[in-house]
Amino acid sequence: MTNFVSTPSVPAPDIVRCAYLELVVTDLAKSRAFYVDLLGLHVTEEDENAIYLRSFEEFIHHNLVLRKGPVAAAAAFAYRVKSPAEVDAAEAYYKELGCRTERRKDGFTKGVGDSVRVEDPLGFPYEFFYDVEHVERLTQRYDLYSAGELVRLDHFNQVTPDVPRGRKYLEDLGFRVSEDIKDSAGVTYAAWMHRKQTVHDTALTGGNGPRLHHIAFSTHEKHNIIQICDKMGALRISDRIERGPGRHGVSNAFYLYILDPDGHRVEIYTQDYYTGDPDNPTVTWDVHDNQRRDWWGNPVVPSWYTEASLVLDLDGNPQPVIERTDASEMAVTVGADGFSYTRKEEDGSAGEKTGFKLGAQV
Amino acid sequence: MTNFVSTPSVPAPDIVRCAYLELVVTDLAKSRAFYVDLLGLHVTEEDENAIYLRSFEEFIHHNLVLRKGPVAAAAAFAYRVKSPAEVDAAEAYYKELGCRTERRKDGFTKGVGDSVRVEDPLGFPYEFFYDVEHVERLTQRYDLYSAGELVRLDHFNQVTPDVPRGRKYLEDLGFRVSEDIKDSAGVTYAAWMHRKQTVHDTALTGGNGPRLHHIAFSTHEKHNIIQICDKMGALRISDRIERGPGRHGVSNAFYLYILDPDGHRVEIYTQDYYTGDPDNPTVTWDVHDNQRRDWWGNPVVPSWYTEASLVLDLDGNPQPVIERTDASEMAVTVGADGFSYTRKEEDGSAGEKTGFKLGAQV
Amino acid sequence: MTNFVSTPSVPAPDIVRCAYLELVVTDLAKSRAFYVDLLGLHVTEEDENAIYLRSFEEFIHHNLVLRKGPVAAAAAFAYRVKSPAEVDAAEAYYKELGCRTERRKDGFTKGVGDSVRVEDPLGFPYEFFYDVEHVERLTQRYDLYSAGELVRLDHFNQVTPDVPRGRKYLEDLGFRVSEDIKDSAGVTYAAWMHRKQTVHDTALTGGNGPRLHHIAFSTHEKHNIIQICDKMGALRISDRIERGPGRHGVSNAFYLYILDPDGHRVEIYTQDYYTGDPDNPTVTWDVHDNQRRDWWGNPVVPSWYTEASLVLDLDGNPQPVIERTDASEMAVTVGADGFSYTRKEEDGSAGEKTGFKLGAQV
Amino acid sequence: MTNFVSTPSVPAPDIVRCAYLELVVTDLAKSRAFYVDLLGLHVTEEDENAIYLRSFEEFIHHNLVLRKGPVAAAAAFAYRVKSPAEVDAAEAYYKELGCRTERRKDGFTKGVGDSVRVEDPLGFPYEFFYDVEHVERLTQRYDLYSAGELVRLDHFNQVTPDVPRGRKYLEDLGFRVSEDIKDSAGVTYAAWMHRKQTVHDTALTGGNGPRLHHIAFSTHEKHNIIQICDKMGALRISDRIERGPGRHGVSNAFYLYILDPDGHRVEIYTQDYYTGDPDNPTVTWDVHDNQRRDWWGNPVVPSWYTEASLVLDLDGNPQPVIERTDASEMAVTVGADGFSYTRKEEDGSAGEKTGFKLGAQV
Repeated sequence: MTNFVSTPSVPAPDIVRCAYLELVVTDLAKSRAFYVDLLGLHVTEEDENAIYLRSFEEFIHHNLVLRKGPVAAAAAFAYRVKSPAEVDAAEAYYKELGCRTERRKDGFTKGVGDSVRVEDPLGFPYEFFYDVEHVERLTQRYDLYSAGELVRLDHFNQVTPDVPRGRKYLEDLGFRVSEDIKDSAGVTYAAWMHRKQTVHDTALTGGNGPRLHHIAFSTHEKHNIIQICDKMGALRISDRIERGPGRHGVSNAFYLYILDPDGHRVEIYTQDYYTGDPDNPTVTWDVHDNQRRDWWGNPVVPSWYTEASLVLDLDGNPQPVIERTDASEMAVTVGADGFSYTRKEEDGSAGEKTGFKLGAQV
Repeated sequence: MTNFVSTPSVPAPDIVRCAYLELVVTDLAKSRAFYVDLLGLHVTEEDENAIYLRSFEEFIHHNLVLRKGPVAAAAAFAYRVKSPAEVDAAEAYYKELGCRTERRKDGFTKGVGDSVRVEDPLGFPYEFFYDVEHVERLTQRYDLYSAGELVRLDHFNQVTPDVPRGRKYLEDLGFRVSEDIKDSAGVTYAAWMHRKQTVHDTALTGGNGPRLHHIAFSTHEKHNIIQICDKMGALRISDRIERGPGRHGVSNAFYLYILDPDGHRVEIYTQDYYTGDPDNPTVTWDVHDNQRRDWWGNPVVPSWYTEASLVLDLDGNPQPVIERTDASEMAVTVGADGFSYTRKEEDGSAGEKTGFKLGAQV
Repeated sequence: MTNFVSTPSVPAPDIVRCAYLELVVTDLAKSRAFYVDLLGLHVTEEDENAIYLRSFEEFIHHNLVLRKGPVAAAAAFAYRVKSPAEVDAAEAYYKELGCRTERRKDGFTKGVGDSVRVEDPLGFPYEFFYDVEHVERLTQRYDLYSAGELVRLDHFNQVTPDVPRGRKYLEDLGFRVSEDIKDSAGVTYAAWMHRKQTVHDTALTGGNGPRLHHIAFSTHEKHNIIQICDKMGALRISDRIERGPGRHGVSNAFYLYILDPDGHRVEIYTQDYYTGDPDNPTVTWDVHDNQRRDWWGNPVVPSWYTEASLVLDLDGNPQPVIERTDASEMAVTVGADGFSYTRKEEDGSAGEKTGFKLGAQV
Repeated sequence: MTNFVSTPSVPAPDIVRCAYLELVVTDLAKSRAFYVDLLGLHVTEEDENAIYLRSFEEFIHHNLVLRKGPVAAAAAFAYRVKSPAEVDAAEAYYKELGCRTERRKDGFTKGVGDSVRVEDPLGFPYEFFYDVEHVERLTQRYDLYSAGELVRLDHFNQVTPDVPRGRKYLEDLGFRVSEDIKDSAGVTYAAWMHRKQTVHDTALTGGNGPRLHHIAFSTHEKHNIIQICDKMGALRISDRIERGPGRHGVSNAFYLYILDPDGHRVEIYTQDYYTGDPDNPTVTWDVHDNQRRDWWGNPVVPSWYTEASLVLDLDGNPQPVIERTDASEMAVTVGADGFSYTRKEEDGSAGEKTGFKLGAQV
């Protein structure tokens, strides 16, 4: 039974959006080749230990920090809050939750000022900040626009064993659920949660965690994503294309998943939808709907369900990974006992493997 | 050992391009829903037995005939020749080859005049014609332009057991090879052959044959193909998406394979390259190159290798299917003894499964 | 000198976004042909007097009401507020401003509940509502997706003589300025103002007003807009394309302006940028920058500056149009005494007609 | 009255396609910035006097030679022929026409072998060659693919005073007319002529000549062309965008015209249609059809009609420019006595300025 995170009596910090991820990588040069040469993220600043990268339309100092370290992991999921006072609010909120927090007036990374980092109830290193250096927003610097240009940071995706517990915690924190995946027995397999007016700023994927599932950047159009695939083919690293491109059922976005040199997963993503109305309809998908993860019914590769990146505690040590005890989405949809459907039977039931793309599942 | 088709002493007919396919379908209404409602091909004419369809930029009567019949099969692969006299040339050519031929001054289908049909040396029903009714070319009828519009017939693809034999026969017939797939032992797995200035008018895929592998229509841009996938998702027939979308290694085209209600395979295809120069370089791919069939290394589903449509003889009976005795591409690349690579080893060798996308092959 | 609108002591209503426009049209059938047959907006409901239309990804009842009437005009600019209580807040706010208001518990249009309409200080008919009927959100109904699909209502654009006055009023109402156009003498020619996280929910264009400059819908990608042009060419109504397609300097969006049968202007718009951060940088353009209105320097046609739609008061009578007394953007950029530049001189000054596209202005 | 070019008794050379243009430019560094840095053409070879450039999918040595010289001009319009013997055929053909010819076994430019250059009957420097160095075809080098990538040389466009005379000469030379523009009095304003299976390899534009109107490169998709505009905006050289982007009536291609540092005009072009059938329908446009030059009715800027590049004789001196005596397209469509229409009247006549976009013509 889920042991929910308590709801603090103090108000949750007013979060604007996911803002940056700090990633520990084991070979900075290889990671630079991936994020800068391949993906074209823009270097705001770099030194021998870290590279600060931003997307094309970003005006804050960075969306991604690559920091050299011994163990590949995610060191911080950073959110921007609405005002300097909201950093105080975040600190108070997590203190009341009994979480370890660390406040640094000069920030944890270059370009960012007063910040608080916490080990949150799910075991993730969350950061909250408002002060940040503004840098040139490249929006109309089309002289720098590559064929596969990444224009915005879109979201994080976190793996956690108990999705309802995580969802409740994030809802208390002010996130709203745009979509989720459930089964008829009430198991929740995943949930998408937003502050800005898109489908998500972060999502919870059920699995062994806490781990980082992926970070996602968006492009303007679908052809930009296809170009990234084509370029990976040209560079003969197509084996680093893990899944896609495809159209998500959930979120409706056109997507691609690729793997960086350390195995950190990056999603390239475009064209989800507006979620800013207070009564934005939540979409619930049946875990056996074969189009939930890929609208075209293409299979999810097993690694996408099983692999993810470690996350660090505030001392920089990997958090222990706790096993999911709820049913696994992979097991119930791919395994011998699972069944899925593309369309409902005429009587409304989800027929066993009706219209299932068997050929693709070998 | 390959028993080559002899080369006639009379000149081969001067073929312009692949022009139309006659398909036997078992349920005309279901096929109409697929080709007209889903894919948006334009009806030139129809009656209770047949539907004559053309693509958006076509000015001849049809690119596809759907004819109602008891057994799903391909009844004719029709090529347009350069002049009326070339129909005579075709007839003479096949007669000398010892093939059964049938000449009809009024054509075999509506809209087409003087034609000859043959049972060719590979067992395929080929047709050659020049006279054809011109119809409205819809090129600028953007009021009829759907989001997934098919603008041209691009090519046929035929399954035949002995690719070198078929290739020699088609080269004699005036086709030129743009690309092929081979192995270091000299086995040819497939060849692409053109008359018009694209990568192919037809291709030979090694396998049990004679069978129709697919017919391909082209779109203007890549997003048009994505729309077809999205629409099939919306119609909850994603299980009829067999493979893709993806980027071909061979031909460089962006592609999608879908299955019609009878299991006839249709490719949607865009952006291959110009091949009109006499010395257009032929591209040879190693069968173990994991990017040959999909530039992004995504796996070919087994059905794509094994399933194909019967073809009819001139009496309308299915041609017997002869088994391929050469190595099968699926076996040498997917099976237990196969190996593939994404990139060469530094010593230039193709390392065993170097960079192979294992996860995707489960 | 600008006579600013006073700032009420009661809080401004919390506006979510621009939600719908009510347009009076003189021939409902002709307007239906334009908005439904040409543009593909989806009919939620219609009768002999009115048509209720929505965009592809909308879940509220409508984004556009076409109502039959004797004089073509805009009858209401409707904004959605965050909760039912905010309708009360809006009513109180405008009452304190001394504006005429009208509250209707059952709404002014089908599908919308409790609403207040006001004659605002600038003379525009504004509406505020929360209660609205949810309808099918067509986001994944790709079977209904046309090649030029309009996916969201993006913004309104209003013509008003005194832009700084209007801007101050809208800032008080909670809008934030994303971009504006000024000259070195301090004249403001236009301002873009948002509540949702895009460049604008409405904009103020300096000119004789109050008038509706245009309503804008967005597409997913740029090719969707090109298709609308192509389709208008095919329908031989290219003379209803007023301006574009082009890339805006302001907002960076790809755009097109077309005219409906009554001369109401519709913009089709895609790919502006995220503005949700509290310190989102405001972009100010020099009125003499030749790329401000079209990033490619293509000229603005005079009608775009001079023509606009009347707006109605709460009795349904056209508001009188007041002349702008400030300098006109057309006069200072197109006329004999104006000058513009594409790039600054090396000394930083804006040279007279440096790099100006004279040929295009003949 | 047109004094037609005589038809030689010897066969015309068998031309494959337009292959390259040699352009004299006055500042090699500035031209390099334009063609390489801005447009992304690929340098095959360069020295202090010349740069040899090719498009992405080209496999011959170059499509464009920029040669430094005192007077900006076109030095050669080079066509590839089907075999070495066709160079002899070309030489014999032009000799019989009484034209000055020059044969060079080692070619006139690097990378090209045995060639003949001629001063053709219209005064243009034409070259014919077969032997050419093959270079890396970059088709799948997506690591080099820019957002506005030029993938093929598409065509030349030549200005000549007497279009029917030029057309007859080119038809004798084996070109076929795909489209033309005429008036009801029988004046021909322009003609499009092809060897390869596209709308043209060259076109004749009526005007003072012989002059080069433009050279055209094609892109894969429409967004690639938009990116070139966007990049020119970013570089603040939007005044070098002369016309477009737009959709041509003639050819149906999506287009853009830009000007290089010497004023040589370059078209970027995509998605015309297949013309390879022997009876490909010729499309004739009425000069008063307002959608002939731009399907969206956008006006042609006057410079597009009047400006063009000089061409050189075989000594490298500019050919004298002869005035057109037939009616000018600009005069009959833009001037005071002209009239145009967007759609025909109901009685079938082309009403005076029916639906003409007057506002845009100011």
